[in-house]
Amino acid sequence: MLTLFPEMFPGPLGTSLAGQALDAGIWSLNAIQIRDFGIGKHRQVDDSPTGGGAGMVLRADVLGPALDHAKSLNPGAPLVYMTPRGKRLTQQMSHTFAEGPGVTILAGRFEGIDERVIAHYGLSEISIGDYVLSGGELAGMVLLDSVIRLLPGVIGDAESLTHESFEQGLLEYPHYTKPREWQGHATPDVLLSGDHKKIAAWRQAQSEHITAARRPDLLAVKVPKKP
Amino acid sequence: MLTLFPEMFPGPLGTSLAGQALDAGIWSLNAIQIRDFGIGKHRQVDDSPTGGGAGMVLRADVLGPALDHAKSLNPGAPLVYMTPRGKRLTQQMSHTFAEGPGVTILAGRFEGIDERVIAHYGLSEISIGDYVLSGGELAGMVLLDSVIRLLPGVIGDAESLTHESFEQGLLEYPHYTKPREWQGHATPDVLLSGDHKKIAAWRQAQSEHITAARRPDLLAVKVPKKP
Repeated sequence: MLTLFPEMFPGPLGTSLAGQALDAGIWSLNAIQIRDFGIGKHRQVDDSPTGGGAGMVLRADVLGPALDHAKSLNPGAPLVYMTPRGKRLTQQMSHTFAEGPGVTILAGRFEGIDERVIAHYGLSEISIGDYVLSGGELAGMVLLDSVIRLLPGVIGDAESLTHESFEQGLLEYPHYTKPREWQGHATPDVLLSGDHKKIAAWRQAQSEHITAARRPDLLAVKVPKKP
Repeated sequence: MLTLFPEMFPGPLGTSLAGQALDAGIWSLNAIQIRDFGIGKHRQVDDSPTGGGAGMVLRADVLGPALDHAKSLNPGAPLVYMTPRGKRLTQQMSHTFAEGPGVTILAGRFEGIDERVIAHYGLSEISIGDYVLSGGELAGMVLLDSVIRLLPGVIGDAESLTHESFEQGLLEYPHYTKPREWQGHATPDVLLSGDHKKIAAWRQAQSEHITAARRPDLLAVKVPKKP
């Protein structure tokens, strides 16, 4: 993780599921301070946009050496730049990262980074969604969290994963637990029937119904089944 | 923010832009521990899914009192549940939240929450993207960060905001800064021309070109211009 705010890490990723996996050595993180590669006495990292305009842009001759350093630490890892202009992160992409040798993430700040860095290093531009954040750090954490929980040994019960949203190209069905009745709302009878076939069919139908109602775009996408 | 991990907050939101705004009192956050509303000596918050299946589900009779408490602290705030089954967060939604009285966010964990809570409280289900996280906390931080930076006074130069991705229904144009030449890559001549009209036209064309190439779906959406 290349960032101007290494103190943000592991942050939320140091707690709960990802934090336990971190303690267990299933994953690790190197937060590299971009400013260590800054220019001159003041370790300058940015400059005004060529051609004018608001804000500041991270310099190519600062990010270049920082990326070279990160590459030397994990040569096989894909280089990712978090940006709202990127390809949108999907669960399938997270699976691909989880099967790979790790990932080097560049978290931008200010107006963005010099475009030539993206071309020169062939950075994969990835977006976590259609909104703008104050920097790439939270986006990088989201990417990592979605990947970490797919690593072998992180979620005890791998069964949990197969019914999740997006795994079968569908949103997840609704969940219920005790008490049976709450504030006048009953639990659907089928779930109390004890008939596992009927329950599975009801859940599948609910998934399909919710997906059709909320995200018909997902139904148009063919998702390859996991072996 | 209703969570089982209040210690995650403000976390990354306590640093940099959002952190300065927090210190300045532009926004504030109340992290409510759901376990405080747990049942019995062990403060139980979850139970197994009715009808069987993996994982645990957050109980309605725990989340109910927790939500009632949160509502009493900010009665006007919309109630949001972060879930991959939700409506996808957009920059327009972040603007709407920024203009409102705040937001109460429920961060789920485990398999999810009892469906009856969503119906009873009319929770707005919001997703930050098509992937699954280990909990709603990071998703909630993403929502908050996208909103906080739009609050008046958080970004000094409001000009910065108007050219951003999604503000005009377009992705942002590429940025360049010094040095003029780097690793054999030149800066586009037009940006060095000093002709502000030509530069603005080039940037607009770049935005349109990048959006058409990467996200043609955005061009099909009509975005109302901000006054």
